[in-house]
Amino acid sequence: MTSAPSDTKASNAMWGGRFTAGVDAIMEAINASIGFDKRLAHQDITGSRAHAAMLAAQGIITDKDAEAIREGLLTVLSEIEAGKFTFRKDLEDIHMNVESRLKEIIGEPAGRLHTARSRNDQVAVDFRLWVRDQCDATIDGIEALLRAFLAQAEAGADWVMPGFTHLQTAQPVTWGHHMMAYVEMLARDLSRFKDARKRMNECPLGAAALAGTSFPIDRFATAAALGFDRPTANSLDSVSDRDFALEYLSAASICAMHLSRFAEELVIWSSAQFRFVRLSDRWTTGSSIMPQKKNPDAAELIRAKIGRIMGSTVALFTIMKGLPLTYSKDMQEDKEQVFDAADSLLLALAAMTGMVTDMAANRESLEKAAASGFSTATDLADWLVRSLNLPFRDAHHVTGSLVKLAEDKGVDLPDLSLEEMQSQHPGITEDVFTVLGVENSVRSRQSYGGTAPDQVRAQVARWKELLA
Amino acid sequence: MTSAPSDTKASNAMWGGRFTAGVDAIMEAINASIGFDKRLAHQDITGSRAHAAMLAAQGIITDKDAEAIREGLLTVLSEIEAGKFTFRKDLEDIHMNVESRLKEIIGEPAGRLHTARSRNDQVAVDFRLWVRDQCDATIDGIEALLRAFLAQAEAGADWVMPGFTHLQTAQPVTWGHHMMAYVEMLARDLSRFKDARKRMNECPLGAAALAGTSFPIDRFATAAALGFDRPTANSLDSVSDRDFALEYLSAASICAMHLSRFAEELVIWSSAQFRFVRLSDRWTTGSSIMPQKKNPDAAELIRAKIGRIMGSTVALFTIMKGLPLTYSKDMQEDKEQVFDAADSLLLALAAMTGMVTDMAANRESLEKAAASGFSTATDLADWLVRSLNLPFRDAHHVTGSLVKLAEDKGVDLPDLSLEEMQSQHPGITEDVFTVLGVENSVRSRQSYGGTAPDQVRAQVARWKELLA
Amino acid sequence: MTSAPSDTKASNAMWGGRFTAGVDAIMEAINASIGFDKRLAHQDITGSRAHAAMLAAQGIITDKDAEAIREGLLTVLSEIEAGKFTFRKDLEDIHMNVESRLKEIIGEPAGRLHTARSRNDQVAVDFRLWVRDQCDATIDGIEALLRAFLAQAEAGADWVMPGFTHLQTAQPVTWGHHMMAYVEMLARDLSRFKDARKRMNECPLGAAALAGTSFPIDRFATAAALGFDRPTANSLDSVSDRDFALEYLSAASICAMHLSRFAEELVIWSSAQFRFVRLSDRWTTGSSIMPQKKNPDAAELIRAKIGRIMGSTVALFTIMKGLPLTYSKDMQEDKEQVFDAADSLLLALAAMTGMVTDMAANRESLEKAAASGFSTATDLADWLVRSLNLPFRDAHHVTGSLVKLAEDKGVDLPDLSLEEMQSQHPGITEDVFTVLGVENSVRSRQSYGGTAPDQVRAQVARWKELLA
Amino acid sequence: MTSAPSDTKASNAMWGGRFTAGVDAIMEAINASIGFDKRLAHQDITGSRAHAAMLAAQGIITDKDAEAIREGLLTVLSEIEAGKFTFRKDLEDIHMNVESRLKEIIGEPAGRLHTARSRNDQVAVDFRLWVRDQCDATIDGIEALLRAFLAQAEAGADWVMPGFTHLQTAQPVTWGHHMMAYVEMLARDLSRFKDARKRMNECPLGAAALAGTSFPIDRFATAAALGFDRPTANSLDSVSDRDFALEYLSAASICAMHLSRFAEELVIWSSAQFRFVRLSDRWTTGSSIMPQKKNPDAAELIRAKIGRIMGSTVALFTIMKGLPLTYSKDMQEDKEQVFDAADSLLLALAAMTGMVTDMAANRESLEKAAASGFSTATDLADWLVRSLNLPFRDAHHVTGSLVKLAEDKGVDLPDLSLEEMQSQHPGITEDVFTVLGVENSVRSRQSYGGTAPDQVRAQVARWKELLA
Repeated sequence: MTSAPSDTKASNAMWGGRFTAGVDAIMEAINASIGFDKRLAHQDITGSRAHAAMLAAQGIITDKDAEAIREGLLTVLSEIEAGKFTFRKDLEDIHMNVESRLKEIIGEPAGRLHTARSRNDQVAVDFRLWVRDQCDATIDGIEALLRAFLAQAEAGADWVMPGFTHLQTAQPVTWGHHMMAYVEMLARDLSRFKDARKRMNECPLGAAALAGTSFPIDRFATAAALGFDRPTANSLDSVSDRDFALEYLSAASICAMHLSRFAEELVIWSSAQFRFVRLSDRWTTGSSIMPQKKNPDAAELIRAKIGRIMGSTVALFTIMKGLPLTYSKDMQEDKEQVFDAADSLLLALAAMTGMVTDMAANRESLEKAAASGFSTATDLADWLVRSLNLPFRDAHHVTGSLVKLAEDKGVDLPDLSLEEMQSQHPGITEDVFTVLGVENSVRSRQSYGGTAPDQVRAQVARWKELLA
Repeated sequence: MTSAPSDTKASNAMWGGRFTAGVDAIMEAINASIGFDKRLAHQDITGSRAHAAMLAAQGIITDKDAEAIREGLLTVLSEIEAGKFTFRKDLEDIHMNVESRLKEIIGEPAGRLHTARSRNDQVAVDFRLWVRDQCDATIDGIEALLRAFLAQAEAGADWVMPGFTHLQTAQPVTWGHHMMAYVEMLARDLSRFKDARKRMNECPLGAAALAGTSFPIDRFATAAALGFDRPTANSLDSVSDRDFALEYLSAASICAMHLSRFAEELVIWSSAQFRFVRLSDRWTTGSSIMPQKKNPDAAELIRAKIGRIMGSTVALFTIMKGLPLTYSKDMQEDKEQVFDAADSLLLALAAMTGMVTDMAANRESLEKAAASGFSTATDLADWLVRSLNLPFRDAHHVTGSLVKLAEDKGVDLPDLSLEEMQSQHPGITEDVFTVLGVENSVRSRQSYGGTAPDQVRAQVARWKELLA
Repeated sequence: MTSAPSDTKASNAMWGGRFTAGVDAIMEAINASIGFDKRLAHQDITGSRAHAAMLAAQGIITDKDAEAIREGLLTVLSEIEAGKFTFRKDLEDIHMNVESRLKEIIGEPAGRLHTARSRNDQVAVDFRLWVRDQCDATIDGIEALLRAFLAQAEAGADWVMPGFTHLQTAQPVTWGHHMMAYVEMLARDLSRFKDARKRMNECPLGAAALAGTSFPIDRFATAAALGFDRPTANSLDSVSDRDFALEYLSAASICAMHLSRFAEELVIWSSAQFRFVRLSDRWTTGSSIMPQKKNPDAAELIRAKIGRIMGSTVALFTIMKGLPLTYSKDMQEDKEQVFDAADSLLLALAAMTGMVTDMAANRESLEKAAASGFSTATDLADWLVRSLNLPFRDAHHVTGSLVKLAEDKGVDLPDLSLEEMQSQHPGITEDVFTVLGVENSVRSRQSYGGTAPDQVRAQVARWKELLA
Repeated sequence: MTSAPSDTKASNAMWGGRFTAGVDAIMEAINASIGFDKRLAHQDITGSRAHAAMLAAQGIITDKDAEAIREGLLTVLSEIEAGKFTFRKDLEDIHMNVESRLKEIIGEPAGRLHTARSRNDQVAVDFRLWVRDQCDATIDGIEALLRAFLAQAEAGADWVMPGFTHLQTAQPVTWGHHMMAYVEMLARDLSRFKDARKRMNECPLGAAALAGTSFPIDRFATAAALGFDRPTANSLDSVSDRDFALEYLSAASICAMHLSRFAEELVIWSSAQFRFVRLSDRWTTGSSIMPQKKNPDAAELIRAKIGRIMGSTVALFTIMKGLPLTYSKDMQEDKEQVFDAADSLLLALAAMTGMVTDMAANRESLEKAAASGFSTATDLADWLVRSLNLPFRDAHHVTGSLVKLAEDKGVDLPDLSLEEMQSQHPGITEDVFTVLGVENSVRSRQSYGGTAPDQVRAQVARWKELLA
């Protein structure tokens, strides 16, 4: 069973024609997919070549016909890649465009290619191959960004900066530690795309229109030829579902969410008020008359991509909602959403990789900000617990009093004398000064995954090995 | 203050250049908007022409310069419309492409056009003009569809069909009544676009970069020249907000939701099991070998558009979330979302108008379905309440018994004898038969907005007058 | 026609029962709505009282029965308001809970209330009344916030602060001008809720199950009694559509987007690096040991609400997608989405009103930031155009040179001597110093809607009058 | 560092208090989370008990204190489980409620529990444990539904029904094959939740506020005690990210999409026009007076859940967009979204499992529908290709002619005589009749994953083994 357009025009004569009325411009505009599905040309031809080889191996078509088909398809592909192919809207989609041109080139054997196949399983395999390719490209893109963050982390494993909660300084941390937070996030993103790729790596070719076929095809052969782990196990499901695309989109949305967070940090950090980082001119624009203005355009555009990618995700979920099995034309709307999301994500990853590689931390600003606001008060409280065995809540009370004392004197905690310290708790000793100050503070956070430079360097080493 | 790209290449020399590094391909890919904002060419030129005329009227530039600018812009426009204009990616956006070409044509005066203006208010006015145009086009598109539904309603004001709840026959209604339900929905959509248009009809031109300008411009003049009701009242807001686009998208989503419902009905109604309607060949595709298969492709594609349009809506909301004032580059992502949503909605409206115009109700199937399932049981219950003064719940009990009696006998309610009726309630009289049967049922629903043919015809008349 | 649950238990005996199987726990959990629709109690009783009065006025029930019903319903309402009412899950929804209790109180006449009505139009009117009430409450909430912004604007009409693009200082503006930007946004939000309220203000009561009724009801009377402008004009549409709820949600999403932007500004402005604003202790939390840490919790929670509200919007759009007419049970999921969104929006508006009222601008930080980064370079360029008639692009070139000169000397533009100025362009006169400096800059932006204090004060006055 | 509310009231005295102003009702309403995070009580206490044991094992607190804490926490848990615990809004969240009660029970040692911990890592571990529990519950729920579909598939492996595209009959398939399509979809859902569970199974406890701690804690010990595979490797990431929740929500959305499709099929199939399936009374509601009306309420409510779950997904994505590290209060909004989505999904799975178990296929209707519309025309065309070696497109032409012949005669394809067959192509032999007729058709689809009963049974067997 093959879905056919209702056009009687000669241009689409291969469909035969049961419809008396012509297709008018509106129908063509809403119905034709060639405007976007031509991006599947490579996948379509690859799939068809595997199908033809299998048909011949199974004796369904002759070796000679298969050879003509396979060679002819290579010719079509080279025409497309050379930009010499004329895509025709009246031929609706990439499949018909390719097949029609194949017929011009090789004649009658072209008509045998579609044996034991339908546009339904054909588009399913094309699109799946395309999304699988995007998984691979995304994995590469994330790995490049991981390396960029690792390089920053390694360089600045012991540069002190403020650790924020609520955009308020909470405790000192290190630049390397902050960079490594994104390494963790992106590494999870990486593994999501790997899982998605593995799950989608089943071949729908051979599901035919929906019910399978009575031709003695070898679905394991085509699956293997196209790099799939196995054929899909239910033909109705094969032509109906798009969950592999939704899983790609969901993983892309999560990754874009992560990118939006660092993009936001870059926008804030490069403000005149923060000056935590200097972005390269490559990734910013400026004012022709205001030298200090460096607009973080690339960061802002990356920040926006989560909207675009999540929008595509919502679109496809909504499109798929409540569709009875098997193929409905609604599903033709799947491709543009995934195309746009994949393009956006790959571009955002590339731009972010460039920005991270090029950016220069302003160590002075970072350290100064880290030391403000009694940011080592927690260290003092922890010392009281650890060394004097105070209950946590009591230690907080003493610390609060000491901070108040320092605040009233206009100094920082390390500047208080031992006597002043002891005025709030007599048990305090000289040893307390070993934990005050931002350098001491970060050095002390030796718990696994903590901000101590040694911990950061250990994580950098671990990830460099994993990525090697 | 003007935002400038960081490119030192001669091609963009008008920006001066404070950046040492070149913009590489990734930055160009993520940053340039000319690939899509060229759709704003007409609006951009219209806005610039109004600006130039005002500058001259206020004595800020000479009449001669203004004339050269205005004529030169018309030349640029004609080049664009004729497809002879070369859009250059290195010039980033439509504004710079147009201005650069203007300079080639008229020379030095081109440099005066940007007086008292910035790209920020320029793009704000361009985009607002574009969205306003879409409101107008959408209003036209909805009106055409309203007329198509009205024609169907008028023709079939008294054709009986099942009224469904839960896709189960509940009560008989008329074809015209069902069509008029969509007239009501679409009329509310129409009024939403009118409200949106009215609210957005304020001119941001003159907000300049963000703070207004010290030039003695006349914002009321440019507003009037561009068909706006007034200038916007706060320059920061003018270059920052995109709520007018979000309102358009929200109204479009609601309209697309309405279309998705009728599209679903068409898909179900044209199934072999329902056969309620026959769609024209223009809007369906078939199988080359299965004559009865008429795939409702256009209806399915329209059904899918809600996903696409809502996806765009979600995208822009997410993009705008949490952006500090005023302009951030994130906002460049606004246009493609609205372009795609507007294209989708207008196409869906046009295709639906065609389908509704062409479709043929299958009166026989409709009436047969309407009469099944004891669909006039409610009429019987209501008669018991009205004529015998039974409480509603008691009337239901008697009706249930009579339905059971009919069911057991394998007949419909009108086929029971008066004696059989009276066996369940002695007060029942011959008069009861006047409300049984689907024709009687629909004729009796005379409450305002009810399904009685007279009511339907009154509504048709009301709407025809309103739309005249 | 009335939809009935399949339960034979005595507790729900009023439904009669055609089903042999009991409803088990899962079905009850997924099906019952009383857990949330009890929030419609007031609207349900108000609607029923109007219906009963109309039935009596039309002679459909007796005045005595109507009086008993209306009094009994008041009793039920007082029980609910006093927290003495026991909501029963086996009675499914608010309608059956109220009617069942009414029957206990007044006996047989309770059975007449449901005459010429169905749960379908009953829930439609209840929910519409509820959403209309939210429109009113939202309008009030926005007005309160408008007043808070106006008070800040009036106080600081001439306080200088940086105007940002891309979070980079672009030009000086005034605090009052920035506040008034939000007044404009919120005022548009206000008008959206007013439009939505007006559009939804049609009464669905009398649509009955879906087809209208044969009882001689007066829908105009019930519409008027309930404050509606008119009855709805199509009974199928009346029980099927939820576009009024979607319009409320869309307007709420836009308003929440606006709130998220100021919330983001508050978070950034209250950072140690910006210190533009001091939030009241009421709306922040702190650390027990770090005195300077004031976490802007309320601002962050408000910022998050756009996610929650848009999530509800997406939910209802998706639920409504592709539902055939008329009522489907899917639509029961409408209420929780709107309840949550309305609660969130009203809370966010109230908290924002409190924060805006309480916040204290740090004028010193604001002015210092405004003056940095050669923020009046544009003013210089504009002076060159205006006074020396340079083309805009040439003026930028001269300005760039002067900025570079100042930068090299480590001074700001107003600190250059006239000779230094003239070294870059001989035509520059003493007059140029009147536009340099942030005070001069903002004072000069006299275009309508510009940042000049006079302009800001004019807008404040206009809005105070409009809100009076 | 611990985040503290700004309340000076005695009730919250343990926070100390640096704020002069009280927290008023609005702030409490927007800020307090105890209204929903009490659902984390079990996880909170489990996490605290593991923490206390580790603190003692490391010598940070005494064994005696640890024992008191661990016993005291069990007491608190038993009070909560018994419904005897009073949750106090002024104590804000579940953590403070539990700790406050613990102090009442065991006194001073309670103050030592929070050593080397913060609310930031505490809530991170609580929530992760909760989501992990949902993964487990969802996996169980999907497995139950898989078994229900498998049982239907096994029973009806050879029942013939129409295979649809575009809701138009395309080819005959089997009931079992259709059921198995959902087995494939749900099995992929299952594996998504397993992947998500595995990826999130890292323990954030010990990240403390954000930087790790200087106490000599053993994060591997607490991770193991709580069933995690390992501790998280970066403390900033540990308290900042919610991607594990987003991955759960994304997988839930995909699963809900699958459910919405079968729910839609059930609604359509149980219509009077289709009558493909009879739903049990348990999952439907009826009319008290229309015996044939069986409203598929549960199916409709399940269909709606995709909206609700995707709404929650959109909400959390939007909330997380652009948040700078580390914890921001926005993230408090994560829980309600996941709670609601998880509740909805588990309920939908349970209801669907019940419906699938109870439903009865109407074999007669299914087979009759399968045979209509020349549904075996494809089989004829395939026979022509296979047996007569016609090119695919030529075979379609001959088939079209034969269908037309049958249509003109008012018969089905198997009813044509051999002579009539040969009139369109002389090479046709008696053998052609072996592929016509729906039984023959489905039996012939022997390709792997095809609809042939043998293939279906093989898949049923495979899945039964996998699920055993």
